[in-house]
This record gives sequence, structure tokens and C-alpha cells, in this order.
Amino acid sequence: MIDQPQPKAFNFLRPALDQLVAYSSQSEELETSVDKLDANESAYDLPAELKEKLAWQYQEIISSNRYPDGSHGELKSAIAQYVQESCEAITPANISVGNGSDEIIRSLFIATCVGTNASMLTADPTFSMYKIIAQTLGVTPISVPREETHFTIKRGQADQAIAQAEASGHPVKMLFVVHPNSPTGNPLSNAEIDWLKQLPEEILIVIDEAYFEFNGHSLVNELPNYPNWIILRTFSKAFRLAAHRVGYCIAHPEVIAALEKVRLPYNLPTFSQAAAIVALQNRQQLLAKVSEVQNERDKLYNALNAEPRLKVWESASNFLYLRLRGESLEEINQKQAELVNALKEKGTLLRHTANGIRLTVGTPAENERTQKNLLSYLDH
Amino acid sequence: MIDQPQPKAFNFLRPALDQLVAYSSQSEELETSVDKLDANESAYDLPAELKEKLAWQYQEIISSNRYPDGSHGELKSAIAQYVQESCEAITPANISVGNGSDEIIRSLFIATCVGTNASMLTADPTFSMYKIIAQTLGVTPISVPREETHFTIKRGQADQAIAQAEASGHPVKMLFVVHPNSPTGNPLSNAEIDWLKQLPEEILIVIDEAYFEFNGHSLVNELPNYPNWIILRTFSKAFRLAAHRVGYCIAHPEVIAALEKVRLPYNLPTFSQAAAIVALQNRQQLLAKVSEVQNERDKLYNALNAEPRLKVWESASNFLYLRLRGESLEEINQKQAELVNALKEKGTLLRHTANGIRLTVGTPAENERTQKNLLSYLDH
Repeated sequence: MIDQPQPKAFNFLRPALDQLVAYSSQSEELETSVDKLDANESAYDLPAELKEKLAWQYQEIISSNRYPDGSHGELKSAIAQYVQESCEAITPANISVGNGSDEIIRSLFIATCVGTNASMLTADPTFSMYKIIAQTLGVTPISVPREETHFTIKRGQADQAIAQAEASGHPVKMLFVVHPNSPTGNPLSNAEIDWLKQLPEEILIVIDEAYFEFNGHSLVNELPNYPNWIILRTFSKAFRLAAHRVGYCIAHPEVIAALEKVRLPYNLPTFSQAAAIVALQNRQQLLAKVSEVQNERDKLYNALNAEPRLKVWESASNFLYLRLRGESLEEINQKQAELVNALKEKGTLLRHTANGIRLTVGTPAENERTQKNLLSYLDH
Repeated sequence: MIDQPQPKAFNFLRPALDQLVAYSSQSEELETSVDKLDANESAYDLPAELKEKLAWQYQEIISSNRYPDGSHGELKSAIAQYVQESCEAITPANISVGNGSDEIIRSLFIATCVGTNASMLTADPTFSMYKIIAQTLGVTPISVPREETHFTIKRGQADQAIAQAEASGHPVKMLFVVHPNSPTGNPLSNAEIDWLKQLPEEILIVIDEAYFEFNGHSLVNELPNYPNWIILRTFSKAFRLAAHRVGYCIAHPEVIAALEKVRLPYNLPTFSQAAAIVALQNRQQLLAKVSEVQNERDKLYNALNAEPRLKVWESASNFLYLRLRGESLEEINQKQAELVNALKEKGTLLRHTANGIRLTVGTPAENERTQKNLLSYLDH
């Protein structure tokens, strides 16, 4: 390993990075076969005939030596067609594509906040990546809490935070919501949607619909009325393509044009583009699993909710959020950490996050094992 | 298309973006089959048996529904083994992997300059992406010229620019060189390397060895002595994997740790990682084409250099840089634009850049056609 000589300093590196820790997921450390219910992935690989089709395309059509289509022309058309099922007005000019939604989130910060005094707002708990990406870019994250009962955003506190940020010279330029939210599973309420509608148009409202297909309710129809809204989507969940890293967003062409300027020219490998196109072409087949996920989720909810030592929240997504009951948050978190470790030993991988446990809905067999492992652990 | 109502303003977008134009390559506009000699890609796809192997891996081993290995463990080990052929001291802790070198370049700016007053320095002409990425992030690009004879960096001017930037409160934190340079094909001279060695260690020296395999000379052996140096490499050129977007860098673990903090967690699709690993495992077979490229390049150089209307530079890479002779730069550029258009009509795609023409070495048949098309155009 090159680490000699000890240099005096690496002072070309920004000191703020000292505070940060590289992101890592627990799955990376695993060797054995487990029920992987910690990352909200689909439980199902692509059907064999679609993988065969893609393998054939790779061998017969794709030139590995040529750069990808940097304009994403065919993929954008296919996405627009899919989104038109929710809102007819959408065209490819409303679409931008990223190496996962993560890349689009980063591009949004670059297009709005980087190098300025602007800040971003989230209501916690929510998807952690917004704050992580903001911090890597030196953008100030502001967070307000959610109601404990149904995890709706504390909108009064959010309004206050926006006013305070403005007054202190760090105006909020971006607000992130997830619909339905992760890790808590609740969709935006009508009151929350009304609140988003009356926010100042100087704020870019990012509505992350990563789990849209499990909920069936999109805000894409509102885009024509709210040009400061942008909707994020992904192929990593219901479309089963987490390995391929394809995300997209839907917005006013002016916002799309800004994103196209700041993204890297060849951000999406050819094979990833091909996989997303094939998935869209076969979306009826792929999305047919969604109703199974919904049924399994509700079955699991009912089984776990009957257990008095657990508090379980209803979910509009492909996962459940639950908490052990206890006296203090500290006690609860300690017991939850023990539970997650114990279930890992038994081969069930859960995510301990935001003072609770997030549990992805798996195959029926996985869900049965999870239920059994969880309840027998609580009985021990 | 959603573009109603016309909003008063999109003032969450940074005004600086108005100056920028989204990157696009001419190849994207093409429909017909041509000799694609404009992007310095390899002329050769992966051999059929390797594509078959990857197609098999995709069908039998890769789960499309699971997120990629975000730690790049296996790929980093394979890369370290390859780099050890140039410098035994390298381990995976010296390696970071990106979605093309582009992503690593962006991460470097984020780790060093973003949100600060720092600036970056290039000697032009060089790879355009450094400046483009700097501008998207609001980092000031400073550029100094190169000597016209052999395109060595005007080091006196560079020293002056560094001193001036420091004095004006915009210290240079990054300097980019390409070894060999694109579009001009010259490797770093010994004098240039000596100059890099004595630069202040407050500057991160980025040595882009994208074309290393065509040159055979790497500066990786110097890394243990210069912890402020970082070497970029890519699988898009000699390894024939432009479609898969895999780049990597080699540096001190401290610099690597900073890059790992700011990169996106799942930046590289599973199939791209698999392709790079297979390419490394079969590197002898893939790199056997390098000597053909070198021979073809030198043959093409000799043929074009014999034409008095052309000035051609020797190249240590997989492309040639040439200029039409003429009275003024304006006249030369106009004639070159006409030439590039005329050759496009004939099915030969060249790159008009930096007051010259960059011509990628293709297959022997492509090179013969290029030579014929170019010389017959000049005779017309």
C-alpha cells in the first residue's frame, strides 16, 4: 500500500470532508445466502426470457467498445410513453435520466445550490441520501420532524424553518419529499399536497416517487400547474433493475435543460439503457407482481400488528416500518439493534434506521420465515 | 410537452448555468453505418467468447433486482493486480472506481474545490471535460497555452498563473495533465515530469493515463514519492469497454478515502463491474491489439505526413492530431470544418477540435479508407 512518506498535509482536500463517513451497506459484508430484506429491492429477478433477450442484445447488437447513447433518446421515449399512462401531456422533453436517482439528486444540487448560500429542507425520518449528498457538496441540510402518529410533515415547523433560513441568508432552494415516504411507508396526505402547492415557487419541490408503482398514486398530473415541482422515479424497485442503476425524473423542460447541462455526458452504460427499455416494453408482465407485494405486505402487517410488543405502521409501499415498544428511545434502539442482529444470525436481513426497523416485503416464503423468526425472537 | 404556464422565473436554478451548453457528440446524430474515428474508442468489440461469458454471467449469476456491490471489492482487487505490473506497491486501498473517469473527475472537484475560492489549471489544448465539469460546479478554470511545436506545457506561464491565482485569492488546487495528451498525442516530456515534481504539494496533480496502454509509460511508480499525485485510468480505450463506463484512479489512501466519501454509493452497475473484471482476466488477449494500433498509427502518420498540405504530429496514443496548412487560423479552421464535413459525407467521422483534426486509429480497412478519403479530398 502506498502510504509513505507521511505527507505534511493533504490540504487540497476540503476540511469539511473530515466530518463525513463513506456510505456502506451491511449487505456488502455478507457471504452466505440470506433473506435480503434490508434494501427495499424487489424480491424477483427479471424473468429468464427477458434476461435471455438482454443477453442476446449484448452479444449481437451492443458494441462494448462504443460509448453509450449520451442523449438517451430511445430510453426517454420509452419512459415518456410509460409516464403518459399517468399524464398524457408528458413528452421526452420532460424527462432526464440518471445513473440511479442518486445521480439526479446530485445534479439537482449542482443546478441549484452548489457554491451558493442556499440550503435544502427535509422532514425526518426520510431517505438518507438527500442529506448525505447535500453534505458532500457543502450544501446546508435543514430538517424538521414528522408527526409520530402517521409521519406527516410538521408543516408549521417547516414554514418556520423556511422563513428562518431566508432571514439568515441561507434560503431554502430545495425541499425533498418521498411519496410514499421511506422508511415510514406513508404516502403524502391531501393536506401535505395542498401545503406543497402553496409554497413559494422559488423553492424546487422534489417529489421522490421511487415506490410509486406500489402505491399507484402519482403527482405527475400536477406538474403542468407547478413548474417548480420535479418528480423522481427509479427502475430499482418495482421494475427489478437495481443492479442496472437507472433513475429518471419528470419536470418542466426548463428544469430538464438545466439537468442535462450539469450531468455527465455518458452517465448511463449501454446495457443499463437496454435493460430499462426491455423492462418498459414488458411492464405488464413485470408489474403484475405488484399486487402480490401489496397482498403480502398487508398479510405481514396484520400478523405483526397482532403482536403487542410491536408497533407497526400501515404502508403504501413494498416495505413495513415498525418499532419495538419500550420506555425510552435509548432502550428501544438497543432492543431493536439486538433484534436485527439476532435475525441476521437466523438469515433475515432487516434495516435498523430512524429509531425503527424497516422490513422489505419479500417472496411469500421469505415473508413467512421473517414472520416466524421475528415472532419467535420476541417470544424468547 | 409540459411548458405551460410560463413561470415567472426558475430562480432556484443557478444563473451561471445560462452560460453553459449541454455536451453532445456528433455520433448521436448519425443513423447510417460509418467509420467512427471521432471518439478515440477501440475499433474492436470484445471477442465473441468473452461477450458470451458475460451474457452467461448475466443470465446465471447476476441478480438484476439487487443493488451492485458498492464497495467494488472484487473489481478493485483485479485492478490492483493489473497496476502491480507497473508498480508492485499498489493495493486495493490505492484504488477508487468510477462511472467512467468523468465521475472521478467530478468527485475530485467535489473533494477539493466546490464551494471554495479554489481554481483549477489546464494547459490547452487538452481533454475538454476537465473544464466542462469545473464550470458545472462553479469552479474557476484557468488555462495556459502549450508550445506549438510539440505541445509541451508553457511551464513559465503556468508558474505565473499559479502565483497570480494564489495572489488573487483563487489558489490552484488541481492541475490536470494527460499522458499522452488528447487531442495532441504527445506524452509528458521528462522536463514536464520534473516540473510536476517540484510543484507545491498543496496542488493535487491529476495525471490522466486514459491512453496509457498505447504508450506503455506510466507515472504510477512515482506515486509513493508524490502523495499529491493521482493517476486516472479507463477501460474505455485499450480495454474496449466504452459502453460499460468504467474508470479508476490510483492514489494515496488518504486521497482515495476522500473520493470514497463523496462518490455515490452505487455508482457502477453490476454488469459493468463484471465486464471490467472479465476484461482484466483476459487482458493479454485484449491488449494484444495494442501493437496493431501502434503499427497502423505509424503507417497512417507516414502516409499523411508525406502530404504537404497537412501538418501531422507524432503520437504516443491511439489517434493522430493534424492540421491543414494555411495563412490564418480562421482560414485553417474553415477549411478543416469543410474537410470534416466532406469526409463525413464519405462515411469517415473525424473530430474537429482545438484548431486541428483528431483522427482515431481504426481497423486496417478503416485506416485505408480514411487515408484514401482524406488524400483524395485534398487533391480535389
